[in-house]
Amino acid sequence: MDSAQIWQRYCDWLYYHPGLEFFLDISRIRFTPEQVGSLQSRFAEAFAAMQALEAGAIANPDEHRQVGHYWLRAPELAPTPELTQAIQGCIEQIEAFAEKIHHGMIPASGGGRFTELLCVGIGGSALGPQFVAEALAPQHPPLNIHFIDNTDPDGIDRVLARLAGKLGQTLVIITSKSGGTPEPRNGLVEVEQAYQKAGIPFAVHAVAITSPGSKLEVQARQAGWLEVFPIFDWVGGRTSETSAVGLLPAALQGIDIRALLAGAATMDEATRVPEVKRNPAALLALAWYIAGQGQGRKDMVVLPYKDRLLLFSRYLQQLVMESLGKSHDLKGNRVEQGIAVYGNKGSTDQHAYVQQLRDGINNFFVTFIEVLQDREPGIPSPFVEPQVTSGDYLSGLLQGTRQALYENGRDSITVTIPRVDARSVGALIALYERAVGLYAALININAYHQPGVEAGKKAASAVLELQRQVIEVVRSHAGSLTLGQLAEKVGSPERIETLYFILRHLHANGREIQLIGDPGCPLDLKIQARPT
Amino acid sequence: MDSAQIWQRYCDWLYYHPGLEFFLDISRIRFTPEQVGSLQSRFAEAFAAMQALEAGAIANPDEHRQVGHYWLRAPELAPTPELTQAIQGCIEQIEAFAEKIHHGMIPASGGGRFTELLCVGIGGSALGPQFVAEALAPQHPPLNIHFIDNTDPDGIDRVLARLAGKLGQTLVIITSKSGGTPEPRNGLVEVEQAYQKAGIPFAVHAVAITSPGSKLEVQARQAGWLEVFPIFDWVGGRTSETSAVGLLPAALQGIDIRALLAGAATMDEATRVPEVKRNPAALLALAWYIAGQGQGRKDMVVLPYKDRLLLFSRYLQQLVMESLGKSHDLKGNRVEQGIAVYGNKGSTDQHAYVQQLRDGINNFFVTFIEVLQDREPGIPSPFVEPQVTSGDYLSGLLQGTRQALYENGRDSITVTIPRVDARSVGALIALYERAVGLYAALININAYHQPGVEAGKKAASAVLELQRQVIEVVRSHAGSLTLGQLAEKVGSPERIETLYFILRHLHANGREIQLIGDPGCPLDLKIQARPT
Repeated sequence: MDSAQIWQRYCDWLYYHPGLEFFLDISRIRFTPEQVGSLQSRFAEAFAAMQALEAGAIANPDEHRQVGHYWLRAPELAPTPELTQAIQGCIEQIEAFAEKIHHGMIPASGGGRFTELLCVGIGGSALGPQFVAEALAPQHPPLNIHFIDNTDPDGIDRVLARLAGKLGQTLVIITSKSGGTPEPRNGLVEVEQAYQKAGIPFAVHAVAITSPGSKLEVQARQAGWLEVFPIFDWVGGRTSETSAVGLLPAALQGIDIRALLAGAATMDEATRVPEVKRNPAALLALAWYIAGQGQGRKDMVVLPYKDRLLLFSRYLQQLVMESLGKSHDLKGNRVEQGIAVYGNKGSTDQHAYVQQLRDGINNFFVTFIEVLQDREPGIPSPFVEPQVTSGDYLSGLLQGTRQALYENGRDSITVTIPRVDARSVGALIALYERAVGLYAALININAYHQPGVEAGKKAASAVLELQRQVIEVVRSHAGSLTLGQLAEKVGSPERIETLYFILRHLHANGREIQLIGDPGCPLDLKIQARPT
Repeated sequence: MDSAQIWQRYCDWLYYHPGLEFFLDISRIRFTPEQVGSLQSRFAEAFAAMQALEAGAIANPDEHRQVGHYWLRAPELAPTPELTQAIQGCIEQIEAFAEKIHHGMIPASGGGRFTELLCVGIGGSALGPQFVAEALAPQHPPLNIHFIDNTDPDGIDRVLARLAGKLGQTLVIITSKSGGTPEPRNGLVEVEQAYQKAGIPFAVHAVAITSPGSKLEVQARQAGWLEVFPIFDWVGGRTSETSAVGLLPAALQGIDIRALLAGAATMDEATRVPEVKRNPAALLALAWYIAGQGQGRKDMVVLPYKDRLLLFSRYLQQLVMESLGKSHDLKGNRVEQGIAVYGNKGSTDQHAYVQQLRDGINNFFVTFIEVLQDREPGIPSPFVEPQVTSGDYLSGLLQGTRQALYENGRDSITVTIPRVDARSVGALIALYERAVGLYAALININAYHQPGVEAGKKAASAVLELQRQVIEVVRSHAGSLTLGQLAEKVGSPERIETLYFILRHLHANGREIQLIGDPGCPLDLKIQARPT
């Protein structure tokens, strides 16, 4: 294609939404008109599937659940008036609560206003709030946000050390949809202990976001926590940013949640249009499909050229990979689907790995995210060279990379937004939610369950159960044992490697068990109880 | 393989280094003895190549440069006494400088001690210092570190806003090997302007790390900056963490740089052993080779189960992808090599995308990084369940995921370190540097250049040059132009799409140019000078 043809193709395929000042360019994905044509009937089915989903169909057949995250920003579209009211009520509850916190009407137990916000949650309960905090939190937010998003004791200690002396001014949100996920539960135990040690009552600092009726809700209500916010059954963790999970931390940080919801709602409308060329989510799904032959053969590299959007690719990792990474399609065929997602930010990543993208293995396509506004209006930009600003460089580097990749046979998508504000961020979230839904329909998989997550959890429970047995056996045994002997004694000779991992970890932490001998020769190790 | 065979394989292949308390397990990569045997002669060549490199051979033929990062932690191995002395001298210079800063012997211009550290640099000049700061900075470091690692004006504003009122106590390090990379240069211009606006002299706050004789060094010396530290010609950006680039920020934060160097030196010794089974870097290279068939067919997913190591995968992205992502091998064959690297941390990422890893597209292998010590010794761990701590959960989740993936046909490597300290971090850095070197030798590519990085930069310069012309032409033209007319006027009808990008960006920032019309219909837009 010569430059005139490329330009024509660019203009032909350019999508623009005036209300959102949003552009999408997929012209640098090398698809042919025939390929697009061959997908028309599947897109028609995908649009129909999305329409049914929005109307309240059981779109998650495994779990027999509705999928309703689109209703969160258009409550009037929910299938029943009760749902409409529940959604609106939740938003109002969040705003009212945030206002009371901001104005000290719910005072901190340490006196005065709450100044710190500690969010305890993992996966869908952390990635959205982290992305949005990094993208949108004002320079001086009413509450400074902190996260415990793992069950790493050292990581928890580091967060609590930053809050040392401020626990009395800290509002703690525990987010767990099921109320039974171990990581937030562990975080809660550790945080409660920190309050106890500091001699500060915990309940008057605590808030829960959880499914109505969950164990966590019961615990919160019994202990007299400040408030409980609902996660609706029909909202999945990875699509929960516009539910209380995302909105409560955002509102507390002073982020305009109505603008975020409005941006998402506007994008939702734009992505309901049942015509590929006029629907940006369909264009994205088309591009993904063509790039990876509908089988995820190319990784999705996400490069926002804007520091504030650093966490967008981590957010998309979950949304895309957990939704699309499925073993079977809806007909029961083994398909092993998915799209791997990674990326940080441009131009920084150019200095990290654009070398490989341009010259190396061609197993990816790039999504450039361009933000037109360089910095807050009114702040003058110095020239770093005659007539050129830092922002011109950022723009030039994006363009140069896009061009260099294309010339070397590497495909890309370019998303352009006017600025990083609540409205644009809401639109981006909604865009990718819908694109994932449409792509899942194209490849005929269930995007709304995550059966594979359970396997690792179950295996972990079994490890912990084995650990309890090991401690019991070693404590009650006089003298030392070999690994083989111990494995026999706990009745799990086939799990000897797991035993070794357990023992090595217990030993390293000065726990009930000691290993004697060369740790690199597991077969020669002696195991005994640690003298108390 | 039954469980007894798997356990035997585990024991057979387990690597342990007693001095570093370091374990490496590659038994869960499905290689056969035949495959290992078939690589023996190539490994012999790889070991010989590494030995020649360490002895001072020109290992980067394109740029006719030596590759000497191993000398940085064993100066006595440098090929000449002058080099040995220069390396030792640089470490002493860093320690002496850090001591003077810590003790206020070089006082901040605002009076008293420096309390903040602002590092301006990108790629190799940022990723190592960021990774090490996150992993090792003490809870209350003598200087709090901040980074400008991009040319995003808004990102720079956010960093400078955090330093508002503290510029007088801020030490600024500008790192640029060539002294001509635009991003750090732009950062410098913006930071200098901030000092100027605050009425604070900049030079007495500034330090440069750069190649002797570079433009940046000249500028620093002429302006009377506090000090200049060298980047040796034979140190590449992505292997510069144990040079002044990494050591100076680390020392200023109170990190034990001698322990970091010692850990790296000890791992260097361990990875010089010319026998695959007794060399952990060779074992890694073997595992990568088998997993991806020597062609990078599997992505490397890096999952440290420890919050402090969150940035390790970003660090490895650069080290691995920029080193291995090459178009041609050393014989000139087109090979398009590389290994894509991504990951954040476990168990957090289990809730993000282990769904896809377990069930979805099998295009990856995982590297689990296990840290045995849960938290600082002496801090008691509460039980989250009977006899079970948060740390037991973290360990159980790692084991469970490793097992669930293996049972589903997904391969993994497990690296185990005793704790996250300077010694272990130094060892990890050295391990991966050597593994990359050995793997590059196995696939016969130059791991030490980055020709593809230039393409994007050159294309960006061309964009900025075109922007200057556009501004000139529009300013001197009365009335409005179409895109086509403008393209003709600047003599670049083939670059009309670039013009459109440039104009859209200038317009959005209230610059010299206005676009009139529907931004989504580029062909209909009118372009005119913005009234001043």
